[in-house]
Amino acid sequence: MVRKQLEISLLVSLTCLLLFPSIFTVRANAATRTSTSSTTLQTSDQQVLDYKIQDQRGDQEEGGGHKDLGDEEEEINPYVFEYDRDFVSRVKTEHGRVDVLQQFTKNSNLLSALANYRVEILEANPLTFITPAHIDADFVLFVVKGRGAITVIHEEIKRETSNLECGDIFRVHADTTFYMVNRDEYEKLYVAKILFPVNLPGNYEAFYGAGGGDSESFFEAFSWDLVEAALNTERGRLEKIFKQQQGKIMNATKQQIEALSQDEEGVRGSNGAWPFPSNVSGSPFNLFKKGAIKSNDYGDLYEADPRDFKPLEYLNLIVSFASITQGSMAGPFHSKAAKIFIVVEGEGYFEMTCPHHSSSSGSSSPTYQNISSHLRRGTIFIAPASYPVAIVASNNSTLKLLCFEVNAQANIRYTLAGKGNVIDAMHIEAKELAFGVAGIEVEQIFRNQMDCFFFPGPSTRQQRQGSRADT
Amino acid sequence: MVRKQLEISLLVSLTCLLLFPSIFTVRANAATRTSTSSTTLQTSDQQVLDYKIQDQRGDQEEGGGHKDLGDEEEEINPYVFEYDRDFVSRVKTEHGRVDVLQQFTKNSNLLSALANYRVEILEANPLTFITPAHIDADFVLFVVKGRGAITVIHEEIKRETSNLECGDIFRVHADTTFYMVNRDEYEKLYVAKILFPVNLPGNYEAFYGAGGGDSESFFEAFSWDLVEAALNTERGRLEKIFKQQQGKIMNATKQQIEALSQDEEGVRGSNGAWPFPSNVSGSPFNLFKKGAIKSNDYGDLYEADPRDFKPLEYLNLIVSFASITQGSMAGPFHSKAAKIFIVVEGEGYFEMTCPHHSSSSGSSSPTYQNISSHLRRGTIFIAPASYPVAIVASNNSTLKLLCFEVNAQANIRYTLAGKGNVIDAMHIEAKELAFGVAGIEVEQIFRNQMDCFFFPGPSTRQQRQGSRADT
Amino acid sequence: MVRKQLEISLLVSLTCLLLFPSIFTVRANAATRTSTSSTTLQTSDQQVLDYKIQDQRGDQEEGGGHKDLGDEEEEINPYVFEYDRDFVSRVKTEHGRVDVLQQFTKNSNLLSALANYRVEILEANPLTFITPAHIDADFVLFVVKGRGAITVIHEEIKRETSNLECGDIFRVHADTTFYMVNRDEYEKLYVAKILFPVNLPGNYEAFYGAGGGDSESFFEAFSWDLVEAALNTERGRLEKIFKQQQGKIMNATKQQIEALSQDEEGVRGSNGAWPFPSNVSGSPFNLFKKGAIKSNDYGDLYEADPRDFKPLEYLNLIVSFASITQGSMAGPFHSKAAKIFIVVEGEGYFEMTCPHHSSSSGSSSPTYQNISSHLRRGTIFIAPASYPVAIVASNNSTLKLLCFEVNAQANIRYTLAGKGNVIDAMHIEAKELAFGVAGIEVEQIFRNQMDCFFFPGPSTRQQRQGSRADT
Repeated sequence: MVRKQLEISLLVSLTCLLLFPSIFTVRANAATRTSTSSTTLQTSDQQVLDYKIQDQRGDQEEGGGHKDLGDEEEEINPYVFEYDRDFVSRVKTEHGRVDVLQQFTKNSNLLSALANYRVEILEANPLTFITPAHIDADFVLFVVKGRGAITVIHEEIKRETSNLECGDIFRVHADTTFYMVNRDEYEKLYVAKILFPVNLPGNYEAFYGAGGGDSESFFEAFSWDLVEAALNTERGRLEKIFKQQQGKIMNATKQQIEALSQDEEGVRGSNGAWPFPSNVSGSPFNLFKKGAIKSNDYGDLYEADPRDFKPLEYLNLIVSFASITQGSMAGPFHSKAAKIFIVVEGEGYFEMTCPHHSSSSGSSSPTYQNISSHLRRGTIFIAPASYPVAIVASNNSTLKLLCFEVNAQANIRYTLAGKGNVIDAMHIEAKELAFGVAGIEVEQIFRNQMDCFFFPGPSTRQQRQGSRADT
Repeated sequence: MVRKQLEISLLVSLTCLLLFPSIFTVRANAATRTSTSSTTLQTSDQQVLDYKIQDQRGDQEEGGGHKDLGDEEEEINPYVFEYDRDFVSRVKTEHGRVDVLQQFTKNSNLLSALANYRVEILEANPLTFITPAHIDADFVLFVVKGRGAITVIHEEIKRETSNLECGDIFRVHADTTFYMVNRDEYEKLYVAKILFPVNLPGNYEAFYGAGGGDSESFFEAFSWDLVEAALNTERGRLEKIFKQQQGKIMNATKQQIEALSQDEEGVRGSNGAWPFPSNVSGSPFNLFKKGAIKSNDYGDLYEADPRDFKPLEYLNLIVSFASITQGSMAGPFHSKAAKIFIVVEGEGYFEMTCPHHSSSSGSSSPTYQNISSHLRRGTIFIAPASYPVAIVASNNSTLKLLCFEVNAQANIRYTLAGKGNVIDAMHIEAKELAFGVAGIEVEQIFRNQMDCFFFPGPSTRQQRQGSRADT
Repeated sequence: MVRKQLEISLLVSLTCLLLFPSIFTVRANAATRTSTSSTTLQTSDQQVLDYKIQDQRGDQEEGGGHKDLGDEEEEINPYVFEYDRDFVSRVKTEHGRVDVLQQFTKNSNLLSALANYRVEILEANPLTFITPAHIDADFVLFVVKGRGAITVIHEEIKRETSNLECGDIFRVHADTTFYMVNRDEYEKLYVAKILFPVNLPGNYEAFYGAGGGDSESFFEAFSWDLVEAALNTERGRLEKIFKQQQGKIMNATKQQIEALSQDEEGVRGSNGAWPFPSNVSGSPFNLFKKGAIKSNDYGDLYEADPRDFKPLEYLNLIVSFASITQGSMAGPFHSKAAKIFIVVEGEGYFEMTCPHHSSSSGSSSPTYQNISSHLRRGTIFIAPASYPVAIVASNNSTLKLLCFEVNAQANIRYTLAGKGNVIDAMHIEAKELAFGVAGIEVEQIFRNQMDCFFFPGPSTRQQRQGSRADT
């Protein structure tokens, strides 16, 4: 592979030399970086080709190929994204914004399992209205912070309004028109979404019936005589309503917000007691009210799977949330689902082990690379299926992570340490043979940690031992 | 992107210059056109790359890259196909033909959601027999016109014959051998098929046990001694039966047609009253006998979903049919399914609004392009999931469209005008905020149109108002 | 296409000429071979592009592009793979090995339907232990030969051990830790696996908790302070257990093997009498104990579908096994599933008919190519959905084939000869019209063969007739 890529890149370089001498170096970089990257997994040519192409595009977006260290890191660590670097704004007004994470496959095909998922963050000021739209993607939202309400328009054109609070999970079907409000007078509303596009893999669009700010209404794209006929209304009157000057997120009065937080027909909506037909979103499910599935002094883990919230089933999705006490850690563990972690509060770091095949041959046994990164609010990192991962909270802040687990069918979290770890469950003879020492020795080591899933982190442990040593 | 493509194309050009100076211009064209096209949506590099490559191939098929206006249109409007331009014949005899539409992704990746579907049109003269075959694709057929019969060979090798008439929908499983007849003495048989290939995405092949006309039997591809042993018959006798000279569609006598229109065992077949096992095709379902789901002076809409016809469920398909009275219109509306419209009668036009991101950044709000085209018998056009679309019949002909709606699970048609339109269902406060005018004003406008789904078209409306003005 | 490819390859050649004159010829070859290949099916540009790229990589792996006849064959026959040519070792010790077949799409996109499947062969010496691992792929194993045992670690971290014998089918979920033993004192253990990767299409990795031989433990990739904290154990003790020197397949004592062949809690495991939850592997299913579904003097066919073994349902897989008596044949037949045949014993050959479109146009009716190859132990060949195929055993050995049938939903084997063949089931009028001779003549021919599915092969038949002639 390396050799072939070298050829192509030299080939490109040749032309660059002839046509754009200035960016010859870029290409060289591209080649080097790519061939390195391409050795980190045994993949198909086509994938590596994609990688290379995307790689080069990377250069250009950054404007002619100047590569700072940040970018190098991006090459080396395709599993990590930063809010301030890797998101673009879909909506941006003085009252709020909707930002979307670049495609997971933009920098690397190592994440091709996530090619058809996107992640979006909504931030809205107090007492604001997010204008109606429908998009060509199914999505599930999670309320990170604040108090909102969402209204979806259903079949036989009825509408359903649900109040949203921190921890709520809600599913909206592709093509369904919805609008939201931030009901709170003082607090911002933060919502994280995972989207499942239905038209183009990894791409989706918003369709706004009302214009606003920098963009027009889709009605305006139809010829006027057609819209006049459809709405049986003269162009003169129509033009007025398609020319409002506000943006897509705007202030609203308390009275408006109140009205938009409930249905006229009180019974329907958020208190959806009866089963909804499959094509209806139903009420939100609150992750925290369910209670933690794992909890100790070092952290808490919350999880909503399709048994808790039926709408997740069709999307094959699990939504989970981990709160790791300062100085503590979670894992190492691995699971079948691909995990998209979003740091919503605190700092810390994660370590993940990735199989690594030397470029010389895909035939050898893998060695394992340590992929790791500092974590702060807005950092997003990916743990692919089966990759062992551990997450550590800093000593001065509790680390809180939202996690979208995709391809989650029959998902199980296997812990590699602490109570109920995988190794401890093996026959003692298997421990003895696998580790090449007395089975009892292995047993003792994998039973030293009495806690479950969440543990004291490295620094905490060292302090304790330090103090123990002192006494 | 533009810049990168420019590089590549210049790179290509460079070589062309050295090797084929003659087609230098072609490449330049290709580059320009592509970079334009690639701005029409925010897509992945790979997709754009595909686009470009396919683009260039386009040139070559058209013979060295001469681009007439028609082609430019094709670039600009990848959503429209014409029977006389975009189909190729799979079977062609004096008695009938089978034509298949090119792959939806041939010209553009905007339709990649349809990459694995194909559309086929069968036309057979009166009293003809279409020779037996099996194909590596599931398919659903719709009888556009005429009276036919189809026989499928089932497991435990029993056969089942079903009569087919206008409006019948029938499903045939991949790998199942089938043959058909046109039972009518005077009328041609027209059948439209949507195919779901099971081997290669978007590609399928027919396997003919009997030879005929320009093609051989697949038996002939086996070595003779193998076929002799399998059939326990001498080559001499075998050769005779694999050498018939007729084509794949041939005349048949009234007696033969009659026999081929029923099973010996009368009970089975078209009057299949009892439930069939899942791997059996069962009886046809007639779209028109079910009755219209929407109907007024301006048009009728018929629909068959999996609740009507179970075999559609596995294919996630809805088959619908719209008849739009002359001078009337349908929509605007949008739905979750991707819609493949086939004009079977009449003339008119459609308008569709497509999100459009300026090339400068994918981050801005979308503007919307108006995609439209004249419609006539044989025109096929695509409305992707969620794209608002409206269809208008000409003043002198009723416009009839067959529609295959794919990825149709939980599909809903949301109308944007007339009774029960999406905007009208919103809170009045939402109307006020979204449109920036008094809510009551918006309410009035979206209630001016009293009809449902089908309305008087632009010209009709103008005439009426004209006449009203006169009086 | 040809022209475009020529350009590209010449383009590449140009550079090669400037930079690597030595391999100019390679490129030329690549172009020629590709353009030939690309005519063997009507496919999308992208596919052909892949093909070409993979093609060139082929060259390089073979070291600078020297093409011997073997390779040419590989080009011509992408449906056949050989154990000694197309497998690479994932594990290789003096006590056994794990070999994996290259990706099905490496040489050709004709097999893109199999792009996400892999095939693995395990060979282990008597009384050996295969070290614990989990992989990012679901898999189903079939015991070709020998007596083994497998232990899987389940949720709530319980383990389940199942004894394995010849004919056993067993499913292991992606991400589930498992280990195996060869229980037999004298006989080698041979296991064939089909794998369904969950991360990267067609790619999967093994994760080893214990180090061993040439590779490390994934624990070692974590930083030491993290592992110390997780396991609450000092680095000193940890290092010992991650430094065992044995390989991944090692000798074990009879006592160890015995212990590893059963669970402490006797009830659980291999005698799994009660239904297991869906995420548990359950007991193996023995293909041979079910009995043959087709059987006569010329061969036996065994089959396990999801009704026999529920775990196959989610993977949409059928496992079958054919034993063809020496000098006999199976088929010709076709079926909806794509079939991966693995020759486990004996010799013979297969013939398959493949549709072939001349490059001039995809519009013509197909002609059919005869794809065939000699079969011997370790040969793997593919019969795509609907392609008629026949398999013949040599005169001096019974031919035994394992078959993984993928995309097997609603799969039916349609025979083209013998009792219950497809043609015989047609209306006599259909036979008459299709074959262009008296229907009775066709009927006689397709009823000459009285046996079912398995028949005397070509040579056997000739001998018999020879002897009959003599008498």
